Amino acid sequence: MKVAWAGSRETLEVSDRMAKLVANDPAFEKFTRPMLGRKELFKDTLKKAAYAWKLIIDLRLSEEEAKWLRLYIDEPAFTDLHWGMFIPAIEGQGTEEQKQKWLPLAQKMQIIGCYAQTELGHGSNVQGLETTATFDPQTDEFVLHSPTLTSSKWWPGGLGKVSTHAVVYARLIVGGQFHGVHGFIVQLRSLEDHSPLRGITVGDIGLKFGNGAYNTMDNGVLRFSHVRIPRNQMLMRVLQVTKDGKIMQSDVPRQLIYGTMVYVRQTIVADASKALSRAVCIATRYSAVRRQFGSRDGGPETQVIDYKTQQSRLFPLLASAYAFRFVGEWLKWLYMDVKQRLAANDFSTLPEAHACTAGLKSLTTTATADGIEECRKLCGGHGYLVSSGLPELFAVYIPACTYEGDNVVLLLQVARFLVKTVSELGHKKPVGTTAYMGRAAALMQSNCGIQSAGEWLNPDAIVEAFEARAARMAVSCAQRLAKFENPEEGFAELAADLVEASVAHCQLIVVSKFIEKLQQDIPGKGVRESLEVLCYVYALFLLHKHQGDFLATGYLTPKQSALANDQLRTLYSKVRPNAIALVDSFSYTDHYLGSILGRYDGNVYPKLYEAAWKDPLNDSDVADGFHQYVQPILKQNLHSAKL
Amino acid sequence: MKVAWAGSRETLEVSDRMAKLVANDPAFEKFTRPMLGRKELFKDTLKKAAYAWKLIIDLRLSEEEAKWLRLYIDEPAFTDLHWGMFIPAIEGQGTEEQKQKWLPLAQKMQIIGCYAQTELGHGSNVQGLETTATFDPQTDEFVLHSPTLTSSKWWPGGLGKVSTHAVVYARLIVGGQFHGVHGFIVQLRSLEDHSPLRGITVGDIGLKFGNGAYNTMDNGVLRFSHVRIPRNQMLMRVLQVTKDGKIMQSDVPRQLIYGTMVYVRQTIVADASKALSRAVCIATRYSAVRRQFGSRDGGPETQVIDYKTQQSRLFPLLASAYAFRFVGEWLKWLYMDVKQRLAANDFSTLPEAHACTAGLKSLTTTATADGIEECRKLCGGHGYLVSSGLPELFAVYIPACTYEGDNVVLLLQVARFLVKTVSELGHKKPVGTTAYMGRAAALMQSNCGIQSAGEWLNPDAIVEAFEARAARMAVSCAQRLAKFENPEEGFAELAADLVEASVAHCQLIVVSKFIEKLQQDIPGKGVRESLEVLCYVYALFLLHKHQGDFLATGYLTPKQSALANDQLRTLYSKVRPNAIALVDSFSYTDHYLGSILGRYDGNVYPKLYEAAWKDPLNDSDVADGFHQYVQPILKQNLHSAKL
Repeated sequence: MKVAWAGSRETLEVSDRMAKLVANDPAFEKFTRPMLGRKELFKDTLKKAAYAWKLIIDLRLSEEEAKWLRLYIDEPAFTDLHWGMFIPAIEGQGTEEQKQKWLPLAQKMQIIGCYAQTELGHGSNVQGLETTATFDPQTDEFVLHSPTLTSSKWWPGGLGKVSTHAVVYARLIVGGQFHGVHGFIVQLRSLEDHSPLRGITVGDIGLKFGNGAYNTMDNGVLRFSHVRIPRNQMLMRVLQVTKDGKIMQSDVPRQLIYGTMVYVRQTIVADASKALSRAVCIATRYSAVRRQFGSRDGGPETQVIDYKTQQSRLFPLLASAYAFRFVGEWLKWLYMDVKQRLAANDFSTLPEAHACTAGLKSLTTTATADGIEECRKLCGGHGYLVSSGLPELFAVYIPACTYEGDNVVLLLQVARFLVKTVSELGHKKPVGTTAYMGRAAALMQSNCGIQSAGEWLNPDAIVEAFEARAARMAVSCAQRLAKFENPEEGFAELAADLVEASVAHCQLIVVSKFIEKLQQDIPGKGVRESLEVLCYVYALFLLHKHQGDFLATGYLTPKQSALANDQLRTLYSKVRPNAIALVDSFSYTDHYLGSILGRYDGNVYPKLYEAAWKDPLNDSDVADGFHQYVQPILKQNLHSAKL
Repeated sequence: MKVAWAGSRETLEVSDRMAKLVANDPAFEKFTRPMLGRKELFKDTLKKAAYAWKLIIDLRLSEEEAKWLRLYIDEPAFTDLHWGMFIPAIEGQGTEEQKQKWLPLAQKMQIIGCYAQTELGHGSNVQGLETTATFDPQTDEFVLHSPTLTSSKWWPGGLGKVSTHAVVYARLIVGGQFHGVHGFIVQLRSLEDHSPLRGITVGDIGLKFGNGAYNTMDNGVLRFSHVRIPRNQMLMRVLQVTKDGKIMQSDVPRQLIYGTMVYVRQTIVADASKALSRAVCIATRYSAVRRQFGSRDGGPETQVIDYKTQQSRLFPLLASAYAFRFVGEWLKWLYMDVKQRLAANDFSTLPEAHACTAGLKSLTTTATADGIEECRKLCGGHGYLVSSGLPELFAVYIPACTYEGDNVVLLLQVARFLVKTVSELGHKKPVGTTAYMGRAAALMQSNCGIQSAGEWLNPDAIVEAFEARAARMAVSCAQRLAKFENPEEGFAELAADLVEASVAHCQLIVVSKFIEKLQQDIPGKGVRESLEVLCYVYALFLLHKHQGDFLATGYLTPKQSALANDQLRTLYSKVRPNAIALVDSFSYTDHYLGSILGRYDGNVYPKLYEAAWKDPLNDSDVADGFHQYVQPILKQNLHSAKL
């Protein structure tokens, strides 16, 4: 199963090797992290990042190894943005000349960069950004300026205290005309003493959710007061501004940026399965350790993992982790496919691929954020301790629901695509994940034929149910939209229903890709059987959760829906004996899990007890502050206390 | 509306006066709290608690005023447990003699106490506690002992560093026989120098979720090594142990403890409406400030509160806050009713009242925890900043889902009661909130008669729909349970479905009590109309969310369910113009809200910007750690860096 999870024997080997490298090196210890004040925490991150970079150089790690290493260090840092956004932005939007100049500097980290797009008053709507880059033909320069308070750059990671450079997104103004939002390479700080350059105000935006979490990152604020940069620091792969102020569109297709989006979002889906699987691993292991009630004749109490209420909350999340893992794997393939097509100037699949990744980004990150919190609750009171690892995991994960496209905004984009697909059904054949829409007429008519719980263990029956639900919801939305005179008004009015139709479509994709995965060659004894059970759990759990959709669209009868739920309960009993093995297959070290409740050896209570004494409050028997603030209460002489 | 929310003009006056007292006193400033290290944070809390106690004495505040004062200070502290658990435990379980001895000491805070029940290995199952209290007739003492690691007391607030005393729950052992779990008053620390007494190991259990949140509280760990206390420190109101080791049951009914549970849980429901309304207030105000997309002709973008997707997530939460407020008010009445009946030895309504409060505690706290996080998401990226107030509100609130009864365990208790009610229908008339079960036969038959969206604006139609759904789900569970030979086995197997039936029952209660509220006298122009809209929003939102239940039980047709959803959308448009007024009616000060996004004056962006610069990382332009850890990277001389 470890191989199935990792994707290949080679990946498993590299991943495990890097995980152990981190886990065995005391420099990467992270237990004390949540106890540090902001300054100490940040300094500690700088130290770890430098140490990691030194390791990468000294051990001559490959790019892939370095990526795994940074993952297992498990601490957001400026390096994430430098490697993940700054360099890719130059690679994707820079001209050959620009790449030759800037990439070697960045790759050796002689400069450190970030990605400055979001502003204090502007997030999702990139076209609403206010920062301006005005061309001055006199000096052949752009003048970057923040005309309002809300135009301050706000949120970019690595911007506040570390980055020497940034790719800054601003409104291009040439000859008094607005020419869209573009990226500019701007130096922010001196390469000598690191002080901010003239005209630049830069700093950290302050504390974020969680004890450690993203507080290791210097998310920053940035303002420009007429800052000048040479003309050749505008990223000009798609659009050029000439010395004499002419605008020239290059022959590079603009659709390229959608290709980049597909790439970024597929990595987010992959990360979702990682985060969810960590939480599930912790909750599953601890559910086997923890006992509550059910003692017979004074014997031990029942392991909580044996309760159906626990199983009905935990096992669908376990199944979701696997489902997201496989759909992420498929998205990686999709990105490669899109990339090849783009190279051949074939844009035919791009809208569908774009909608698909947007939807899956939304679906998986929302489910993961909720799932981590559910896992915390499944650990009872102890899940609330930072040492359970779950509060930090939650706090560090939830931004994924907002960055790279707000999850609701993304679902509305998917809905737009679905409605368009429906409206074009007469003359355009839907492709890829929307191919089933081509059979919409049949799917609107057919009804489920299932008559016993056992019949639900049938991939075709499941896929058809999800297809019928998704198609019917999309068609119904399209029909209701058609009644509005102004389509945009209709879209705004029905937005909440459109979002539900998008969710139905995206869940179908995840279910289908899980089923397709099972049709591939899967090595290892019993692995396919275990995955089949998880696949059914995932599908039937969704079917029960959204039974309202399935019943309202008339595809299922209440009786069939109840049979699915009966089957689901039976499946939980099949997951139970494999549950621990299924989470062990994630191959996570105790260091990476960072959870006393999720320890591999199950030695939970002694370690919780041991950890408690390390809290600073336990440095002394009598608390700091007792003599000033508690004793005067007890001694009834508050009037003389210094308050 | 302010009066309707507060409950009465008098309550509003006291509450507002105390809120302003706190808000205007710089001693209660809380902005820097999340930036403090654990020790400084805790010391700060001790200082505030002492200062508040001095205020209460100096201003001669009444008990009610003091309660509001502590609420608005908005910081968990040892005093919560002293007043909220230690004193009530002695009042409820102590003999007259014990009350006379201990209460005056506690009320003057000459001793400070906490409530030590939960153990490292034992939470929900009180009968599973391991700490022992063994009677030694030789010395007329009890010997308290922690026989195992898992028997360590773990979690009690105020225990770790402050409390001098605790009510400790332990297994009573007399003459080698176990006589149930009982409470004992145990001194933990010297009243002179505060050092732990001999045989007592006590400390803090370490960091919890959130930056500030519950880290202001010394949740503690406590172990006993053969600690002796006089016999008269066992709380003996219900059960006595005599000098010669005899066990004597008093004539005080054991049911009293259920009365206390009803009390505690109704306060939790009241707190849920407070926490949810704070989050909703922040999200609603910021949704009116924030603009995204939809700019026409270069004008301002659309306020996000005008988007249907925002409304369909936010307004049901606004309605829920009001719904929980009113059901909490009703629960307060229920508790008074139960108390009077208990005094008259009438236990007839107790099981129903107990099930009802257990269910409502579960329902409201779960919805509130989820609702706070939803409000955070509704604020976009900025909700992730600690200065939004939402992360802290979430972190400090979520324990409510676990303490005083895990929410799932409570729903299973409700289910037991429901199934019992169904099974007794032939010969016992259901009372109170289960009275509708008496019409189960009719509710199983009747179908909804609604034919247009407008017809949903009918309280009777709504109540009948919720009654039919709840009755059908309970009866269906009972019928399926009857098929099991072993009822406990059936209960375990169907647990997840039973939980859903309980939720249906509890939602019916909240909906009904909201409707009943509207039938009372409601002063203020337009107040009733506004509340009616919210009541319909609450009910129809639930109906849509759980449409699977309504369709599966056959009470509604898909068409009727769709009409309800159409009506719901129309209602959102009616809420919109009143939304700001509805959250202003909570009458929260900016201090209590603790949120820049939720500022009353809407001056969000300048204040966010201003606050950023107060982060310790911005103390200097160049970050602490730059020279050691970043410069060596930039200068390519990591080999000589000290890592």
